[in-house]
Amino acid sequence: MSKFQIINKDQDSEARLAVLETAHGPVRTPVFMPVATAGTIKGITPQHLQETGSSIILANTYHLLQRPGVQIVRKIGGLHKFMSWDKPILTDSGGYQVFSLNSLAKIDDEGVEFASHIDGQKIYLNAEIATKIQNQLGADIIMSFDQCTNFPCEEKKLKKAVQRTIKWAKRCKKAHENSEQMLFGIVQGGINLDLRTYCAKELSKIKFDGYALGGLSVGEGYENMTKTVNHTAELLPKDKPRYLMGVGTPVDIISAVKAGIDMFDCVLPTRNGRNAFAFTMNGPLRLRNSSHIDKKEPVEKDCDCYCCRNFTRSAVRHFFNANEMLGPILLSIHNLRFYQRLMEKIRNLIADKQFAQWADDNINKFKTLYK
Amino acid sequence: MSKFQIINKDQDSEARLAVLETAHGPVRTPVFMPVATAGTIKGITPQHLQETGSSIILANTYHLLQRPGVQIVRKIGGLHKFMSWDKPILTDSGGYQVFSLNSLAKIDDEGVEFASHIDGQKIYLNAEIATKIQNQLGADIIMSFDQCTNFPCEEKKLKKAVQRTIKWAKRCKKAHENSEQMLFGIVQGGINLDLRTYCAKELSKIKFDGYALGGLSVGEGYENMTKTVNHTAELLPKDKPRYLMGVGTPVDIISAVKAGIDMFDCVLPTRNGRNAFAFTMNGPLRLRNSSHIDKKEPVEKDCDCYCCRNFTRSAVRHFFNANEMLGPILLSIHNLRFYQRLMEKIRNLIADKQFAQWADDNINKFKTLYK
Repeated sequence: MSKFQIINKDQDSEARLAVLETAHGPVRTPVFMPVATAGTIKGITPQHLQETGSSIILANTYHLLQRPGVQIVRKIGGLHKFMSWDKPILTDSGGYQVFSLNSLAKIDDEGVEFASHIDGQKIYLNAEIATKIQNQLGADIIMSFDQCTNFPCEEKKLKKAVQRTIKWAKRCKKAHENSEQMLFGIVQGGINLDLRTYCAKELSKIKFDGYALGGLSVGEGYENMTKTVNHTAELLPKDKPRYLMGVGTPVDIISAVKAGIDMFDCVLPTRNGRNAFAFTMNGPLRLRNSSHIDKKEPVEKDCDCYCCRNFTRSAVRHFFNANEMLGPILLSIHNLRFYQRLMEKIRNLIADKQFAQWADDNINKFKTLYK
Repeated sequence: MSKFQIINKDQDSEARLAVLETAHGPVRTPVFMPVATAGTIKGITPQHLQETGSSIILANTYHLLQRPGVQIVRKIGGLHKFMSWDKPILTDSGGYQVFSLNSLAKIDDEGVEFASHIDGQKIYLNAEIATKIQNQLGADIIMSFDQCTNFPCEEKKLKKAVQRTIKWAKRCKKAHENSEQMLFGIVQGGINLDLRTYCAKELSKIKFDGYALGGLSVGEGYENMTKTVNHTAELLPKDKPRYLMGVGTPVDIISAVKAGIDMFDCVLPTRNGRNAFAFTMNGPLRLRNSSHIDKKEPVEKDCDCYCCRNFTRSAVRHFFNANEMLGPILLSIHNLRFYQRLMEKIRNLIADKQFAQWADDNINKFKTLYK
């Protein structure tokens, strides 16, 4: 039986409602994965995280590899135990950070050597090593090692990166040794639709447990991203989960769900939360603003998060103003709950066959609110 | 009926087990009050705070007066609502901070003018204003406005401060307008036992709801403090709670309970927690230390706190090492729970008539462990 069961396919769009079975329980999709860069969602405890309705989180192999180190995590009993999170985890392969954090990385067809952004120590990663590391970290879903490119990127370099990504994907599939873990392939190709087609078709032949779109949300803009996602998603196997990496804003997510994307991750809710920016269904709030100084209402009316159930805007503003950790803590919780409420709404709309119309209305609404 | 009911008086020391009834519920004493300087215990949510077993907390009038301002707290519905804490709160009068944070404060018999340590704005406080502000903040227990002195302090200045403290205490008692709130007087006098005697006797005549010892833990050292506390505590009315302000280490607390002190507050558990210092019954742990890098055990074996139930020393060390907020969050929780476990143990020992012997043994033990 497939681990990915589609419950309802939207009639008026490519959106689908599904359940992905993992070694640590089921994940209802479309799903948003909060980002636990170095083994913790920044600023909040797993207890508060669970209360946001998060069912799966992402951790970064690149960061964990350097601190605390893979052998440490392994000795402690794996990533779930280390992080105190017994629900599903996805680890990325490190590819994205190797290229985005290391402008001097030395890359060839075999792999990539780079200097740690923390202490300058030389580190070598390739398909086999990245896979083995993820086998040892023990996440439920692991990603193949890919070559990411900047935006814009000249075609020759983009093509080379796609070719390497395909070769490395095959090597990752071969190297993957833990049958408890699902392995996803990553489609690269920038905003070049021909390269995306080529990469998607080649990766599909490898028969991954799921497929990701990488190399987006790197500066190409909403229109380019949407075009690329719409084009690429439908080339991927319909019976496997599709994951749009590093995305995104509420608009990005609604638009990509329409295109048939099932999984998302992004640092926006927590990063913005730490900077006093709150997401609400009625547009953003900047909680350092003195207009909130005596406001009795919660950050978002009708939000059921810990912050909104217990604190006024006045108090949240005060905590930021006084540099108290509780400000970042509360808005990280709120923003994650906002994202999870958005995903719950999307899933309910797909179940009720009302998603496509709502998406069209709300993409425009959110574009205006969050422009 | 008195709001302070002594359940058991130790036979071999001055320690007593009691219950203090407040407008927001009962407080079992001896009790430790975590410090919510600016309206939040630094680094943790009220939800986690409640789980540490804390039954009453302290907030600083001086800080709240400047940020967010008394009228803001009042408009939001009082301090309990603002902080999202529906158990008892004690506010100090601001006296301590006025003197410790403002070396240029202008003081006379009427009151004190000082410049805000935040923006330099001139602020005036006296007995009536400090009391009115605390009436408006709405804590369950409020403190009279006192003049604190440095250590060491010449006798003439110390005597003047004691005289002012007594005069101001009378004015506070007269100005106090909220019968829902208890008002405590504060005994000053440095380590001068004659002045302590004088101040304690004069304050006792005013008939406060409780009595505090101020001006200690300011550099006088353990022996001087213990001598002063032993001397002063027994001069205070036996049927009222006694509160040793700003104290202290586990040894300080055990020793002062023996002398008949019922209430304590201190920033040590949270401040040390933020700096990777964990209190345990077996001595301190410094969690940045690389010796913890692969340690599977919790910060403290048999501790029932959220940190120890869920995280290894290895993970806590990693969070500090990677500058993740979760490190300070977890050790603040653990240290507060350590203090509350210590107080629970003290209360149980008094109930079982075994406190005095245990105190003698453990004062020496903790002196060695935490020297």
